[in-house]
Formats: sequence, structure tokens, C-alpha cells
Amino acid sequence: MNSDEIQRLIQLLSRLPGLGPRSGRRAALHLLQKKESHMAPLIEAISHAYRTIQTCQKCFNLDSHTTCSLCRDPKRDPNTLCIVESVSDLWAMERSNTYRGQYFVLGGNLSAMLGVGPDQLNLQPLIERVQTTQFNEAIFALSATLDGQTTMHYVHERIFPYVENISSLAHGVPVGGELDYLDDGTLSTALTHRYKVA
Amino acid sequence: MNSDEIQRLIQLLSRLPGLGPRSGRRAALHLLQKKESHMAPLIEAISHAYRTIQTCQKCFNLDSHTTCSLCRDPKRDPNTLCIVESVSDLWAMERSNTYRGQYFVLGGNLSAMLGVGPDQLNLQPLIERVQTTQFNEAIFALSATLDGQTTMHYVHERIFPYVENISSLAHGVPVGGELDYLDDGTLSTALTHRYKVA
Repeated sequence: MNSDEIQRLIQLLSRLPGLGPRSGRRAALHLLQKKESHMAPLIEAISHAYRTIQTCQKCFNLDSHTTCSLCRDPKRDPNTLCIVESVSDLWAMERSNTYRGQYFVLGGNLSAMLGVGPDQLNLQPLIERVQTTQFNEAIFALSATLDGQTTMHYVHERIFPYVENISSLAHGVPVGGELDYLDDGTLSTALTHRYKVA
Repeated sequence: MNSDEIQRLIQLLSRLPGLGPRSGRRAALHLLQKKESHMAPLIEAISHAYRTIQTCQKCFNLDSHTTCSLCRDPKRDPNTLCIVESVSDLWAMERSNTYRGQYFVLGGNLSAMLGVGPDQLNLQPLIERVQTTQFNEAIFALSATLDGQTTMHYVHERIFPYVENISSLAHGVPVGGELDYLDDGTLSTALTHRYKVA
């Protein structure tokens, strides 16, 4: 029904996460109706990102330089390392505006279900990094899932000879969370990790 | 925090209908992580659509030709005209796979609220079209809203001297709809327009 060009555009937009055939169609139509104000800038932005964005050789973040802006920032603590699963988790950590050290993106979690083994993770570069840099602390910021915690223990085994302190994000009641709506696992973890009120 | 190139890409993706800052971020990351399998084809498809897609000079549909594939299709009934509000409504009609005539896209509805007057619609081209083509029937496929119905009556006044029969989509209980969940207006319209069961 639609011309091939529109069909192809809809198909590719539909494959973006969060979009489906219906919203892909709406997005395509929106772009075609706003050719100069939205479609042209989007083409420019995607093409530019395609040409310039690459994986940081040090931390596996994405950036327009071979060493990313976070790794190059001299104001960041060089002796603290935060180990995250993915680039999106790294961005989430940065948005929290609390952490000012170095990062390392593992590139996934070990998963028996999905058949992800240690070879699929950036494990060797991580080991080399902790061997060559003197980190005072490595902080695991991995998901509080079975796979995330398995990964943490596995990676811990490989890096603990080289790092003084190894820690993990706290698990407990999320800020703003009401006890009534929490799952039992979170509540029981929060109870186990309770802290002394001064 | 992110490089300017990524930030710009996120910003433009976030402006697509159905996406927001969060899903725009996910979409950008997805593209950056699937550069060859998804990002490159998307750039190609958007750029191609940008270069080729234009408004059909006859019906105001979008197509890669100045006269769209629907208007060029010799198998479609040349003497029936369906008047729709937007290109997306035209696409919806085509997906219903029931109509095999010509189309005309009005480009909007009259709206006192939004300040849309007759001059903002493709009214003059529509009048010229019904004057130069002998249509047996014009079918209004406009929204069953106040604005849609106002538009229908307004346009009807302008085209009725030139078209033999003018009709509108039926209004009533949607297929699969349960009476209990219908609004009163639909139910009362469906009752008024009741048909004789053979």
C-alpha cells in the first residue's frame, strides 16, 4: 500500500526499542510531515553519531573519542573503579550525580539461561586494567538479579588479588518506596542489611 | 555527561511521537550498539525517504512519485472519492482492505479551539477535483468528533453541487465492542442508525 521507501522506513523505526509497528508508522509519518524541522536534523544527527561514536578503549563507554570524556576528565578520582553491566547503566550512574571515579563496562552479565559465558564479557581487559592501575576501591554496580549477583561473585574472584577494597551498591528499600508494595526479597534484604540509626 | 553527538541524537529521537527522554535514550543506545545491523540501514532509509517522498499533487497522500501509487492504480474505481483528514487516516482506510476508490486528504479538521479555518485545509484543490472529475460518490471518512462532523458539514456545503451522492462512514458499536463499555453518545447514535435485520 505505502511506497517501498515509506514501508522500509516504518520497518526500521518499528525495530527501535519501545516502538512497534503502530508507533513506527506514527514516527515515520511525523518525520515525513516535518521534513525540514525534524527529519533533516535527525538524518544529520544519526549520520554524525554513526561516523564519530566509538567504544572507549579504556572503559568500553561510547564516545566520540577513542578514550571517552569520563576517562579523560582529570577531575575524576583515578583510584576508584565502578564496574557496570552496560553503557546504559553507566549513564544511569552518571545521572545520579554521586559518583566521581572511573568506570568499566562489562558488556553483560553471566547468564546460564541466555548462554552468556565469561568469554563474552570484557573480563580480560578488566583484569589487565586492575593489574596496571592501582585502584583503592572497585564498586560493583550490577543488577540485583541472580545473573547480576553471579557475575559479581565471578568477577570478584578474578580481580580481588589486585584491588584493595571491593564493594557493591547497597540493596534495600528504594527511595520513595512504600513497604506495602515491595516484593518479599527486597524487604528481607533490606532487613538483613539494616543500618544503625545515629 | 554524554558526548554532544550522543546528546543531540537522544534529543532528536526523544521528539518522535511515542518516545520521551527515557525511550529516546534507549533508542539511541540501541542504535549505537547495533551500528552496522540497524543504524546504517536506518540512516539509508531515512535519507532515501527524505530525498524521494513528496506530497501527491492529486490526493495529498505521501509517495515517492508526484502522483501517488493509489492515484496511478488503474484497477481502482475512478468515480468514487473518499475524503479523509490525514495521511494516517488514509493508511488506516487502506489497511481495512475494503475501499478501492480514490482518496483526498483534507489536511486537518476545522477547529474553533485550535483556530483551524477553511484556508488551512486543502479545500480549494478538493473543489477543483470534484469539478473536473465526475465522481458518483464522495464518502466522508472523518473523525466522529465535533470538529470532524463540523468539517464534514462545511465541506459538504462546498462540494454537493458537483457530486451525485455524498455519504459518511457509519457510526455505531465498534466491532468487538461490548455495550457495557460504550459511551452514551455511541450507544445513542447506534440506536438512531439501527438497521433492519433480514
